[in-house]
Amino acid sequence: MDIKLLTPSDMMKYNARVLLKIMRRKSALSRADASRLLGCSRSTASKLMNYLESLHLVTQIGSGNRGIGRNSGLYQFNPRACCAIGVDVKPDSIQFILSDLSGEILIVQEVENKNMSPEETVMEIHKNTRKLLNESPLPDAQPLGVGVMIPGWVSDDGMVLNSDPLGWQKPLRFRVMLNRNSEIPFHILNDANALVLAESSFGTTGNCRNLMYIENPDDIGAAFTDSNHNLLTGENSLAMEIGKMQVNFKDRFYRTEDFLSISRIQKRWGVTIPELKRAFDSDSEESGEICLQLADIFGQIITQISALLNPYAIMINTPYIKSSQALEHLKKAASFYMETTPLRGTQLLLPSLERSALGGACWAILNSSFDFVIKD
Amino acid sequence: MDIKLLTPSDMMKYNARVLLKIMRRKSALSRADASRLLGCSRSTASKLMNYLESLHLVTQIGSGNRGIGRNSGLYQFNPRACCAIGVDVKPDSIQFILSDLSGEILIVQEVENKNMSPEETVMEIHKNTRKLLNESPLPDAQPLGVGVMIPGWVSDDGMVLNSDPLGWQKPLRFRVMLNRNSEIPFHILNDANALVLAESSFGTTGNCRNLMYIENPDDIGAAFTDSNHNLLTGENSLAMEIGKMQVNFKDRFYRTEDFLSISRIQKRWGVTIPELKRAFDSDSEESGEICLQLADIFGQIITQISALLNPYAIMINTPYIKSSQALEHLKKAASFYMETTPLRGTQLLLPSLERSALGGACWAILNSSFDFVIKD
Repeated sequence: MDIKLLTPSDMMKYNARVLLKIMRRKSALSRADASRLLGCSRSTASKLMNYLESLHLVTQIGSGNRGIGRNSGLYQFNPRACCAIGVDVKPDSIQFILSDLSGEILIVQEVENKNMSPEETVMEIHKNTRKLLNESPLPDAQPLGVGVMIPGWVSDDGMVLNSDPLGWQKPLRFRVMLNRNSEIPFHILNDANALVLAESSFGTTGNCRNLMYIENPDDIGAAFTDSNHNLLTGENSLAMEIGKMQVNFKDRFYRTEDFLSISRIQKRWGVTIPELKRAFDSDSEESGEICLQLADIFGQIITQISALLNPYAIMINTPYIKSSQALEHLKKAASFYMETTPLRGTQLLLPSLERSALGGACWAILNSSFDFVIKD
Repeated sequence: MDIKLLTPSDMMKYNARVLLKIMRRKSALSRADASRLLGCSRSTASKLMNYLESLHLVTQIGSGNRGIGRNSGLYQFNPRACCAIGVDVKPDSIQFILSDLSGEILIVQEVENKNMSPEETVMEIHKNTRKLLNESPLPDAQPLGVGVMIPGWVSDDGMVLNSDPLGWQKPLRFRVMLNRNSEIPFHILNDANALVLAESSFGTTGNCRNLMYIENPDDIGAAFTDSNHNLLTGENSLAMEIGKMQVNFKDRFYRTEDFLSISRIQKRWGVTIPELKRAFDSDSEESGEICLQLADIFGQIITQISALLNPYAIMINTPYIKSSQALEHLKKAASFYMETTPLRGTQLLLPSLERSALGGACWAILNSSFDFVIKD
């Protein structure tokens, strides 16, 4: 709760959100439908619909029961009223997308990243952001902001405290750097956090209650959103560090990050990623020892996560686990440690987003006054 | 967000909450102070103060600057406006307390529990609830409800799905049973969940952001509140089952519950609880092998919890770890697995509540329209 009193205008906005929430689930509504569903007077429903129409969040698509009144038109949610930009800064490339409010991608842009410094990265982001906005197929859509995903430790107040993958070791006021001389607001977030938000907003899991996201591009990272897009961030924005969890391999303890980083896997077993992927795509007779051992490590992690968080699903994003057959190896390994009653059998899923940079677009929307289009 | 529109009366209540939030932090305020701190007109501030006064949540304690106006009186928060009852159902006893809104205990009552059936437990709770309300030293305080703590699996909709400690194996509509023929509302919650809420509301940690609570009366249980009294409950109300976590002892895997239940500890090492407590109260030279081995198990759990949740603190409630010296053994064991930078060194704490049944009182308040006295 903020130290801020509600005003009649806040009340109007809140109530318009309630109406929009209903409209997102229905194909089309008349003002009379709205007043019935909200249990309010026709004039209140009309005011709320007018407010949403003034923001272009709803558009009239025809009329319902003709002749019943002047306002019998049918309205529906218009996700193209606004757009947002997502930026995924990776060690080898920077991905940009422009999306609408429903996560539909309108433009994709990718540039190479050759060890760009933070300053060069800011310039590159500014340049491409302008380009995307100029080329937007929806010139009338209001640009809400830019969400920038950083692989590393990002504080709640927009600092990049450290990013090993990008080679940025010193704390940076990165959000401030991005917002300097910019008209459109920039927001930053750890990449795994952005991905879990986007999966639960735009992905195939729908708006699920508890989602865990594990990614292993090289180092291992994770994120958890509990309900209604609340990230579990812990003290100092440092939760979900599954790299710091302990796993046991051949009776020795390891940190997960010392075991599951791609370079360590390649070094330990002398195996390439395509070979590893092939092993995981095979059934258990043909997958071989390496697959069994790696799956066992995942099985240990999945067991601890299921016990502590019991999420609806754990989504796994690595370069070598890419098929449902591959997930079967992890499920089998986890079942060695876990009781699998019908109630305690966390689902394993593959990521479903078309582009990772949607995470940034989702974060930009959640940081705008249009957050209610995503949030419940 | 509910499908419910805000009304002017909701707005008034919300704004009164904002004022009360400020008043809980200040010793006393005049109406003029309130208008200044809220940045609103004097008449709005007066209306809000009148509303709080009508609920007895604030009382006039004297006057401020005399002669400035009729309403220059000083007001302060009155935690005794309401009371709540907490009930902790344990295998050997049932504890009852009556508390005010600030968690101050007004009456304590304890009855023996000799394998009471669910029906007998309901009768016993009804009887003692009436007794506490009759004997209340605050006859004018509004009774908000009764919060009943159950050691077991409690669903969000008030079912006890199973309680091994109480020997209740079948799902019970326990909240419905309690509310039958009752004028005061009953609410039920898992005991560890109630304890973590009460610690973060009334305990010495203050209103901290992330608190983990581990209890080991016989079986091991845990709870986590992330921020603003939101419990992390997972799918099917089944999160924080640390008993299902895996630990490694002498190169074998165990479920934590198979290792840390009191009866297993006694059986495995042939040790009594007082002996164990003495070992943990000794320094590392004298504590012996059992203490080292048990502390190592806790060290593994603490490491996994810190990596995943990074809580502000982990509170540990067992019959054998009762001193800061005892906690030192766990810290030392955890440091074998954990990187202890200044930022990632989860504090270990002992519980601070005067009575466990305060957990129930806290839950009753959080389920009443006076939840805002606790919540931020």
